[in-house]
Amino acid sequence: MDISSIRYAHRFDHVTGSAIREIFKVIAQPGMISFAGGNPSLDALPDRQVDELAHYVLEKDGKALLQYGATEGYPPFVESLKKYVENQLGVDIPAVLPVTGSTQAMDLLCKALIDPGDTVLVENPSFLGNLQCLKLYQANLVALESDDQGLIPEDLEKKIRQYHPKLLYTIPTFQNPTGKTLPEERRKAVAELANQYGMVVAEDDPYRDLRYEGTPFHSIKYYDRNGWVMFLGSFSKNISPGLRVGFIAGDPGIIRKCTVGKQSTDVHSANLNQAIVDQYLRRNLLPGHISSICDGYKSKMQLMLKALENFPEDVAFTRPQGGLFIWAELPGHMDTVSLLSKAVDRKVAYVPGTYFCVDGGHLNTLRLNFSNSTPEQIVSGMNVLNDLIRSELK
Amino acid sequence: MDISSIRYAHRFDHVTGSAIREIFKVIAQPGMISFAGGNPSLDALPDRQVDELAHYVLEKDGKALLQYGATEGYPPFVESLKKYVENQLGVDIPAVLPVTGSTQAMDLLCKALIDPGDTVLVENPSFLGNLQCLKLYQANLVALESDDQGLIPEDLEKKIRQYHPKLLYTIPTFQNPTGKTLPEERRKAVAELANQYGMVVAEDDPYRDLRYEGTPFHSIKYYDRNGWVMFLGSFSKNISPGLRVGFIAGDPGIIRKCTVGKQSTDVHSANLNQAIVDQYLRRNLLPGHISSICDGYKSKMQLMLKALENFPEDVAFTRPQGGLFIWAELPGHMDTVSLLSKAVDRKVAYVPGTYFCVDGGHLNTLRLNFSNSTPEQIVSGMNVLNDLIRSELK
Repeated sequence: MDISSIRYAHRFDHVTGSAIREIFKVIAQPGMISFAGGNPSLDALPDRQVDELAHYVLEKDGKALLQYGATEGYPPFVESLKKYVENQLGVDIPAVLPVTGSTQAMDLLCKALIDPGDTVLVENPSFLGNLQCLKLYQANLVALESDDQGLIPEDLEKKIRQYHPKLLYTIPTFQNPTGKTLPEERRKAVAELANQYGMVVAEDDPYRDLRYEGTPFHSIKYYDRNGWVMFLGSFSKNISPGLRVGFIAGDPGIIRKCTVGKQSTDVHSANLNQAIVDQYLRRNLLPGHISSICDGYKSKMQLMLKALENFPEDVAFTRPQGGLFIWAELPGHMDTVSLLSKAVDRKVAYVPGTYFCVDGGHLNTLRLNFSNSTPEQIVSGMNVLNDLIRSELK
Repeated sequence: MDISSIRYAHRFDHVTGSAIREIFKVIAQPGMISFAGGNPSLDALPDRQVDELAHYVLEKDGKALLQYGATEGYPPFVESLKKYVENQLGVDIPAVLPVTGSTQAMDLLCKALIDPGDTVLVENPSFLGNLQCLKLYQANLVALESDDQGLIPEDLEKKIRQYHPKLLYTIPTFQNPTGKTLPEERRKAVAELANQYGMVVAEDDPYRDLRYEGTPFHSIKYYDRNGWVMFLGSFSKNISPGLRVGFIAGDPGIIRKCTVGKQSTDVHSANLNQAIVDQYLRRNLLPGHISSICDGYKSKMQLMLKALENFPEDVAFTRPQGGLFIWAELPGHMDTVSLLSKAVDRKVAYVPGTYFCVDGGHLNTLRLNFSNSTPEQIVSGMNVLNDLIRSELK
């Protein structure tokens, strides 16, 4: 029988993973100025330090690192990670589970919670990868309304009452793709609604450390009384995405289900990678490293915001205080998907906003990343976009 | 609302992951002789070599290794891996995907194929971790009959006709937990049945390199004409399980679905770990390393088999030509679960065979691992078991 007669699982019926992949192929062209990815700057990646730490941990504990590890994590790292998370959030955390990048935290949380058809509330737009994850678990995605400050608690409560969702997925700090940050009182409201109605919150907070101005807020988890908020963290933005070390923290019952799920997903995350991050925590290397990263990113963000101020007046854009992304909205009749091919002809790339939206639409929006370009590329790439938009508006 | 009112996904209704975990807690007691795990011997773990290779790749390509990588794999490794697999199997392989241990290969293959209720044919007993994986995908597991040589093609065809399964999961070489190896003509028959009826085969072959005697057989994949056989491989047994590097190889359409699934599972496997294994392949370090591992394991296996020959006559056991496990069958009325607590009191552990069986039962069976004990531990631990069984038989 020919393999073309194969029947794939229904979870793939509406997931192709293709649109954005085509963009990333285009970006790989030589000479392209890319505002499309979400990659850290190469300057920010501590290759010498990781080399040194890898040697240190392999010399010290090499046999244990190369042997099978516990699904629950490399014990020294579980210890230092718990302290780190409690320090960051300012609350006691009953359980943490190291995972293979915070993307796996989301996958395991869905595995623990989501049956096909379960409702999950999401910001709209939101992080593409985790929207795809939710679609593969055949969740019923319901988009929340938002304003300049992110999701609106009144709308959240209305939708909780209407849909009885199992899960809220939110990126409260320097959101991907909008760069918006949820203010303190709304964080408190989200935690209270979750506790009141019995809904799990996936608080995905990978950009937390990348704050270039303003005062940090407490996490949603900080306001969680009964354990409904799960905190998803990552060392991808403050150390290295290529090491694939993240974590999920919160209720021990949920962590236990995630752990059982992880047993048959990848058994455990690689010990060497956990041990390297463990050294970052034990040697307290993160604060210095983060502050040097932030210095570089801050000036890039300011440069991109300054460039946007010279765009036509009816181009709106967010003004993040940190993170990696700025979100722009062109006049309503414009289509950033068709505009992209013209931009790419002129060697500039971005991601059209429609790809981050639950039901598509929002064709006049786009996401701009500033971390992975040089200041010169930001100036010249933004000039190209400005010219292009102006000529389209004529 | 109290967190105890949480509703987990139905895929966990019949999965607790607890029985065997309790055993492994017991094993961790000091002074325990453990025939329970499936861990490589610490001698076999090349910590100095990995240290050297990690330094080499981080110095050479550190920035790229620490940056986000492609879901499709670290490009140099994808290249060397494809050559390696083609060399091993003696056939052209259209596509390979590096994954986070071969356990993830199984998880992604299930994600690509299995809807709740789909029938999957499995050997019985079989590898616990992947049985749990299949249960979490809510597959309908149907046990195949087997004899001393493994699964029986006539029974396989009967069950294919009866159940129209989407997938056959098989470990054809030095099977976990039985140590059995499927002979050449049955491998050919499995491939032909898969091609004839349009059923995907997951050929899980992690023990392949650990052959201590006899001649290797061709893989099932070798006899696959139309692409229905997916080959799942691992570097856990021949380099290091803690590095979590495995792969899935075969039909590009299935690999593509696995890749899309992997995007939202862990984005990509850690680049550093892929680069280390890449160096093993490029420097051709595996043959020498494998032969030194095999030397050590062979004598341990022989020692354990010799000890089994002194067991009561009505204790049956398999005589593997490689791998990590021997399977024993005690007289029918004996219960290896209750026997285990007595063995543990005398500081010897094994895994009762029932845990590897699709519907439990087989209470008189047990799995013995020899790789992770010293020769002295094998002799004294097997003496304990022999005494214990003899006193139970009195």
